[in-house]
Amino acid sequence: MDPRRLRDLLDGVRKGTTSVDDAVAELKDLPYADLGYATVDQHRALRQGAPEVVFGHGKTPEQIVGIAQELARTGHNVLVTRLDPDKARVVCAALPSLRYAELARTATLEQAPIPALGAHPVALVSAGTGDLPVAEECAETLRMLGVAVERVYDVGVAGIHRLLHKRDVFERTSVVIVVAGMEGALPSVVGGMVAGPVIAVPTSIGYGVSFGGLTAMAGMLSSCASGVVVCNIDNGFGAAYAAGRILRARERY
Amino acid sequence: MDPRRLRDLLDGVRKGTTSVDDAVAELKDLPYADLGYATVDQHRALRQGAPEVVFGHGKTPEQIVGIAQELARTGHNVLVTRLDPDKARVVCAALPSLRYAELARTATLEQAPIPALGAHPVALVSAGTGDLPVAEECAETLRMLGVAVERVYDVGVAGIHRLLHKRDVFERTSVVIVVAGMEGALPSVVGGMVAGPVIAVPTSIGYGVSFGGLTAMAGMLSSCASGVVVCNIDNGFGAAYAAGRILRARERY
Amino acid sequence: MDPRRLRDLLDGVRKGTTSVDDAVAELKDLPYADLGYATVDQHRALRQGAPEVVFGHGKTPEQIVGIAQELARTGHNVLVTRLDPDKARVVCAALPSLRYAELARTATLEQAPIPALGAHPVALVSAGTGDLPVAEECAETLRMLGVAVERVYDVGVAGIHRLLHKRDVFERTSVVIVVAGMEGALPSVVGGMVAGPVIAVPTSIGYGVSFGGLTAMAGMLSSCASGVVVCNIDNGFGAAYAAGRILRARERY
Amino acid sequence: MDPRRLRDLLDGVRKGTTSVDDAVAELKDLPYADLGYATVDQHRALRQGAPEVVFGHGKTPEQIVGIAQELARTGHNVLVTRLDPDKARVVCAALPSLRYAELARTATLEQAPIPALGAHPVALVSAGTGDLPVAEECAETLRMLGVAVERVYDVGVAGIHRLLHKRDVFERTSVVIVVAGMEGALPSVVGGMVAGPVIAVPTSIGYGVSFGGLTAMAGMLSSCASGVVVCNIDNGFGAAYAAGRILRARERY
Amino acid sequence: MDPRRLRDLLDGVRKGTTSVDDAVAELKDLPYADLGYATVDQHRALRQGAPEVVFGHGKTPEQIVGIAQELARTGHNVLVTRLDPDKARVVCAALPSLRYAELARTATLEQAPIPALGAHPVALVSAGTGDLPVAEECAETLRMLGVAVERVYDVGVAGIHRLLHKRDVFERTSVVIVVAGMEGALPSVVGGMVAGPVIAVPTSIGYGVSFGGLTAMAGMLSSCASGVVVCNIDNGFGAAYAAGRILRARERY
Amino acid sequence: MDPRRLRDLLDGVRKGTTSVDDAVAELKDLPYADLGYATVDQHRALRQGAPEVVFGHGKTPEQIVGIAQELARTGHNVLVTRLDPDKARVVCAALPSLRYAELARTATLEQAPIPALGAHPVALVSAGTGDLPVAEECAETLRMLGVAVERVYDVGVAGIHRLLHKRDVFERTSVVIVVAGMEGALPSVVGGMVAGPVIAVPTSIGYGVSFGGLTAMAGMLSSCASGVVVCNIDNGFGAAYAAGRILRARERY
Amino acid sequence: MDPRRLRDLLDGVRKGTTSVDDAVAELKDLPYADLGYATVDQHRALRQGAPEVVFGHGKTPEQIVGIAQELARTGHNVLVTRLDPDKARVVCAALPSLRYAELARTATLEQAPIPALGAHPVALVSAGTGDLPVAEECAETLRMLGVAVERVYDVGVAGIHRLLHKRDVFERTSVVIVVAGMEGALPSVVGGMVAGPVIAVPTSIGYGVSFGGLTAMAGMLSSCASGVVVCNIDNGFGAAYAAGRILRARERY
Amino acid sequence: MDPRRLRDLLDGVRKGTTSVDDAVAELKDLPYADLGYATVDQHRALRQGAPEVVFGHGKTPEQIVGIAQELARTGHNVLVTRLDPDKARVVCAALPSLRYAELARTATLEQAPIPALGAHPVALVSAGTGDLPVAEECAETLRMLGVAVERVYDVGVAGIHRLLHKRDVFERTSVVIVVAGMEGALPSVVGGMVAGPVIAVPTSIGYGVSFGGLTAMAGMLSSCASGVVVCNIDNGFGAAYAAGRILRARERY
Repeated sequence: MDPRRLRDLLDGVRKGTTSVDDAVAELKDLPYADLGYATVDQHRALRQGAPEVVFGHGKTPEQIVGIAQELARTGHNVLVTRLDPDKARVVCAALPSLRYAELARTATLEQAPIPALGAHPVALVSAGTGDLPVAEECAETLRMLGVAVERVYDVGVAGIHRLLHKRDVFERTSVVIVVAGMEGALPSVVGGMVAGPVIAVPTSIGYGVSFGGLTAMAGMLSSCASGVVVCNIDNGFGAAYAAGRILRARERY
Repeated sequence: MDPRRLRDLLDGVRKGTTSVDDAVAELKDLPYADLGYATVDQHRALRQGAPEVVFGHGKTPEQIVGIAQELARTGHNVLVTRLDPDKARVVCAALPSLRYAELARTATLEQAPIPALGAHPVALVSAGTGDLPVAEECAETLRMLGVAVERVYDVGVAGIHRLLHKRDVFERTSVVIVVAGMEGALPSVVGGMVAGPVIAVPTSIGYGVSFGGLTAMAGMLSSCASGVVVCNIDNGFGAAYAAGRILRARERY
Repeated sequence: MDPRRLRDLLDGVRKGTTSVDDAVAELKDLPYADLGYATVDQHRALRQGAPEVVFGHGKTPEQIVGIAQELARTGHNVLVTRLDPDKARVVCAALPSLRYAELARTATLEQAPIPALGAHPVALVSAGTGDLPVAEECAETLRMLGVAVERVYDVGVAGIHRLLHKRDVFERTSVVIVVAGMEGALPSVVGGMVAGPVIAVPTSIGYGVSFGGLTAMAGMLSSCASGVVVCNIDNGFGAAYAAGRILRARERY
Repeated sequence: MDPRRLRDLLDGVRKGTTSVDDAVAELKDLPYADLGYATVDQHRALRQGAPEVVFGHGKTPEQIVGIAQELARTGHNVLVTRLDPDKARVVCAALPSLRYAELARTATLEQAPIPALGAHPVALVSAGTGDLPVAEECAETLRMLGVAVERVYDVGVAGIHRLLHKRDVFERTSVVIVVAGMEGALPSVVGGMVAGPVIAVPTSIGYGVSFGGLTAMAGMLSSCASGVVVCNIDNGFGAAYAAGRILRARERY
Repeated sequence: MDPRRLRDLLDGVRKGTTSVDDAVAELKDLPYADLGYATVDQHRALRQGAPEVVFGHGKTPEQIVGIAQELARTGHNVLVTRLDPDKARVVCAALPSLRYAELARTATLEQAPIPALGAHPVALVSAGTGDLPVAEECAETLRMLGVAVERVYDVGVAGIHRLLHKRDVFERTSVVIVVAGMEGALPSVVGGMVAGPVIAVPTSIGYGVSFGGLTAMAGMLSSCASGVVVCNIDNGFGAAYAAGRILRARERY
Repeated sequence: MDPRRLRDLLDGVRKGTTSVDDAVAELKDLPYADLGYATVDQHRALRQGAPEVVFGHGKTPEQIVGIAQELARTGHNVLVTRLDPDKARVVCAALPSLRYAELARTATLEQAPIPALGAHPVALVSAGTGDLPVAEECAETLRMLGVAVERVYDVGVAGIHRLLHKRDVFERTSVVIVVAGMEGALPSVVGGMVAGPVIAVPTSIGYGVSFGGLTAMAGMLSSCASGVVVCNIDNGFGAAYAAGRILRARERY
Repeated sequence: MDPRRLRDLLDGVRKGTTSVDDAVAELKDLPYADLGYATVDQHRALRQGAPEVVFGHGKTPEQIVGIAQELARTGHNVLVTRLDPDKARVVCAALPSLRYAELARTATLEQAPIPALGAHPVALVSAGTGDLPVAEECAETLRMLGVAVERVYDVGVAGIHRLLHKRDVFERTSVVIVVAGMEGALPSVVGGMVAGPVIAVPTSIGYGVSFGGLTAMAGMLSSCASGVVVCNIDNGFGAAYAAGRILRARERY
Repeated sequence: MDPRRLRDLLDGVRKGTTSVDDAVAELKDLPYADLGYATVDQHRALRQGAPEVVFGHGKTPEQIVGIAQELARTGHNVLVTRLDPDKARVVCAALPSLRYAELARTATLEQAPIPALGAHPVALVSAGTGDLPVAEECAETLRMLGVAVERVYDVGVAGIHRLLHKRDVFERTSVVIVVAGMEGALPSVVGGMVAGPVIAVPTSIGYGVSFGGLTAMAGMLSSCASGVVVCNIDNGFGAAYAAGRILRARERY
């Protein structure tokens, strides 16, 4: 219900042109969604600068262009995820202001300034070179959320010294995101090294019984390190968003 | 390596009783683990009051009593999880200072004061009465971590108004833990209602294609709400621990 | 929000003791759930006689007795499902007015008259004797919903003539519920014989690659007969409830 | 057996040219299927206008053209499902009277008038834009069955207010079909909001542990809302057909 | 339809007391199932001596006694399968003429002479001692079908010479049934050694990735030996029955 | 060991030119495989006319041509299975005497006369048009084995009368092969109608929870009709070969 | 064939009492298995002292006693695995010379001296206390094979320093066996630390998505450390046996 | 920490220019990883000639060329695995010194001499022609590790004599690698024939319930032959590497 309409109704009651019974009847059916929607709008206004996200998979280039153009027109920042190179060519030709990151398979439009989120960077750890597309999707999302990133790449557990060498990074970051495929063991080791939040992202890297990332995911959920939390397979976007949730809540208090 | 031993070695070098070559040889093999272990000890001292956790499943009552007694003797608080009533009877008879929570299947010993962790409570949301044991394991763990809890129970999505009715709780809590079995839809709805961190715990409640919690877990990982993170099935302890990680990191900065 | 509280607020506006601005502020937060809850209550009053359902699995006998007693006290009919014989003994000793159906594993309390639902009976078809517990849970639920039942039992597809022999039943029933385990082929054959709604219930009867009912369920969902709909494994209650939904909607128009 | 042939036989008995013994022998082997077939034919005649359905997947364009031409020649309406754009081009070139719906991947030929089925429309609810092809396959099938449709699209549970906003639709529709992928939570929420039949269609939208629609399907079958029934993954056609079964049965009485 | 009833009808037509139209109407609805049922009965009479089979799993001892008594009363041989020792004690106490085979978990009543089926014995091969219960269920079923058996036990592929040593058995048997758990490799080796029918029965023997017999079953279905056919896990009865089908068909020609 | 070589050795012993000790030493290592190989050769000679089978999947056209040419040169009949049209073009261009059956995806070379196997045809039953490629692979294999075939196509269980109409076919055939996808219910119905051997072949026809044929396969293995045996998914060749085993054994006695 | 029998035959040929043709005939059928069996016997004699293994699972105490007694009588060492405490009581009462290891669930009889196998011990690494039963089954098997063991227990990857602290053990051992449940990450870390053979044993420790050891097993098979080999879940015996194979081969050269 | 830096520090202590306290502080933080890294480097120098391995799957040709060029420039031997023909063309055009093995899908650069590893060859056994790519990947890896190979190809268990014929190979080889798809039975038979190490490699050869190699893998892990160890599906490289681990350890002592 439009606030104006609500005010009109109450004015009617005050003036006596609307009876209390009629107002009760109308207000009883007051559509919650409208109020809720308004709340959402205001909320969105508050976090001005945050990107609007377009999940590119399963959409045609035309659909993506249409949505992105509308968002661009209204001054929003835009993050398109899961945009493969073929589609990207079409989309970026139509919207030259979009910046395409091939490894991350994301396209971004940054027209409003992005306020910094979090006082410290997020550590972004990955196991092997095959995990980079997922890690970079995560990095691009963090960037669009205003979160600084410190990358710790190629530190798989089969060469454990590489990870130990990087322990100082964990001292200066607030959240650790760990991206790993195959057996997905890295978050367990990291989870034992840091006291702060650890978000694990399994990747579909591997073959045979890697089961397209299921083994890594189940391993992360079964982690012997307490309190490691997990996202869907290849969901670098989701891990970044979860880190944003943690940092945003922190800022609120 | 014991710091004293390190000092003795260096004293020998200084005095000339140990040659530089011998010291190099010994220090080259300097076991990292010892230093690491010391770090861990100091770290543990810093978070004094945090519980030592004993995973009760698969241990005999005698083993649990032995571990708990040793921890109790050294002044630690103790949290035993997954302790079924039969074992609990034996364990609590031997250690009467343990407090057993039947629904949560936890036993706790609280002899050191627990410093409060987090400026705001954690919201603990559950879908149905069958999810209570997992929710309560989570609540007991939060209590032992020093985290305040606000319970929002029995708000399954088939009666969505019950959840909407409780929206104010989400305004005053820092982290939301959502415990649900069956189709595991609750975290998606909650994730759309709050901007802060949402930790989802699937439970094994359900039958047939609930697959002992797998359906709920896969649903939570597939959630259409961005940035929801997930724990293993029935892992109320892990969700609490993850919330503790978030709040602890927040305190550090 | 209590209707009285709403009326008081509006009276205040009318009298001028409450300003329009204050009323807008309060009504903006008008909890939907309260209105919704009221709606639910009225709705429940409309379908007076319908049973309150208690899912017995995973509840202690004491919990079941507590819930059932409260429902009984307030004049409701009660249906307890998934109540195994051991629990039933305890529950029925405490609540002698409950009637226990051992095969169906249900307990019912029928104190308010149950209005008939549907002008024609529902056909309840089952494949083998092992499917009877699920079929009877379905039958008891239908009875408590006020739906008449015509049973067609033991008509598995390996003796197809037994089913063909019963074709006349399908002429005089409005909905067909088909309960089958093992390969779950029966709904396909029935779906080809009748033009009305066919609800299939897979059962966990079988061994090996019956996978506890998964094979039957997947077979029913893959049925070559168009428009057969499926419930969870062993969910006789759900199938009856779905039939009730169909018949209730029919009555509304 | 052709009714004429049956009449001839009986005429022979009456006239004495066929002995009772010979007639018994022949009638004993009276092929049921023939009578059954005749029944089917008469039945089909009764529901004149209903489409003949061609499942396009796995058929060559030539086969589809052949079948559709034969059906078209005999005056039937035709519905081809699962017809991808490449095949559609070939098929529609050969049969220009076919109307292809690209999103729904259906082709239809409507030459006989389609009598309306059901006094009220069916509500067709979908969670996200990725679910539209399945929803539209459902809509096209309903159209060819003579059922009116009211679409409620893009009301996923992560923005629950969008669904609540549309509650009035459920007041004026007879059956609700809910199409959703990912975690498949929408039918649970809808099932709690309406008292009439709810048919859930899982879609293969999602990635990772969405398992190509299995997670949505298992979630729908595990729904905490009682009496929700489920179709195979992406089976929009089947859901429409099930709704048709419900409405057809209603008309019969 | 009872043949007598059919004859009366035709007599009426012949005499003119029943019109041709009335007879057509009645015969059109002639229930196939009745004729079918009669066929079945005669068929059963032809294979007099074959056992009536009672699947004991999931039936109470009382139900088994009831069915067996009725069968015994009417002179049939009886085979009860999947009868565990506890139930067997109750059943055999009530029906002392039943003979219980503990290893095979079968009970048999042999009151009618069993005609021999097949001119040659069936070879019954098993891999390990753990497979014996399934093999013996198979042997008992063959015995009740009148089929002679030659046992070749404990010839697992890890000691391939044991199997090769027994090649002569395959020369003098008509069908080979191979019972094996774990990796289920035995039927592949046997299938390469014999030219006649090979029926493979996977057993649930094994642990871990034996998956309760699934690995053996999938291995048998994937056999590199052409034309090996497979039964459900632990289904010794089914394999015997399949052998009976082969031998019975052979006898017919 | 070549029989000639064996004879020479024994001649040496007889003549005294080879000592008994030397002969023992050599014979002790007598390679079984050689004798076995000879047996195989003789055996193969006995079943002159049977095809050599080339599994085309995963082989290059060049490899297939090479193998087939060698077989053709030595006078054998050849059956190539799983040969897709693209490869077939290359293979048949190089070997014009090969006959390619597109639906069956087989290529055959028939240069030696094929002796008839079995006194009666095999019934080849299939559920839907999508199952035809598998059924035809089966038919081509039977043809090359010398087995006559009687096809009963398109008799899925959703139109059960179509199958019942064909019951006479089962009277005049020795073995029934049933090919079905989706829910795989057809073999259960057929198994209840015939007393002879029933070989079920699941196909990968279907979508969603058809799981590429697994549901049909598990349904067939779980069949409520006793003694139905099963082949791997889409393995029409294997079913034909199994029928050949049955008929060959029958001929031997 | 008994070597004496072979010599007699050849003597007959030499003396002329057996014709060459008769000898050819008999030798052609010379059962390979007999020679093979003899080889096996001699081989077994060579590795005198190695235990005979009895897989206790699925055997009755009486069967185990019977087998063990026969082995004991003939002077063999005996290793019974998977012997639960209840059975062990019965077995050890009947065979007091058996030594039962409760944690390992093994019973051993050591009456012949066990020759040492391998010049260096095997390192036996385990992740958590729950893995001890499997590790100890492995240790007992190694002991009975004559292999020395160095235990490195409780070094899970969540506290990586504990493992690094033990690196010297890997310097002095020939083979490393790694036993771990939950996410099964330990073999990857160990595999990166040592150059020699690493045998991984997944255990069923864990819950939820640990899937009874499948997650650990799949993780080990997907290990990012090259050349790690894997045994079945909980198969401590098999890992020890594999180590024995490696050491035995080493000794041979 | 660089050894020189360590020596300078200790020299400072000896000379008194660095206090003991300062040295303790610095050494306490001595990065383990550096020492570990140095160890790795020296270790790598020791096994000069061993190839650097590049896992080609998921890398672009450009990336592979870049890595290989850097390795080539520094004098290493290079092994690229999982390099499909299309990529190989690009890579080999840029690096003409690379030798591509099409069947094995490997490219190798051999510029440093490869010292022989192991006194005896490794036996490389495969079941069918479809397994050759995996077997050849294994062979190429062994070659680059300096291990001699003896191939025993096409000895599947359905023609067991072919394998028995090759028993002498096992007498002269140190390790047996067995590559098999479909039911994966070959390692069980081989494991029963040899006393030394047996490494099993499942391949993805097969269809239907071969499940892309899972059935072979689970069969190998469930093997009734004790002590058979298993690699991931199609992991010929890993099996070779595991053999290298065994031979390398042997050389060390």
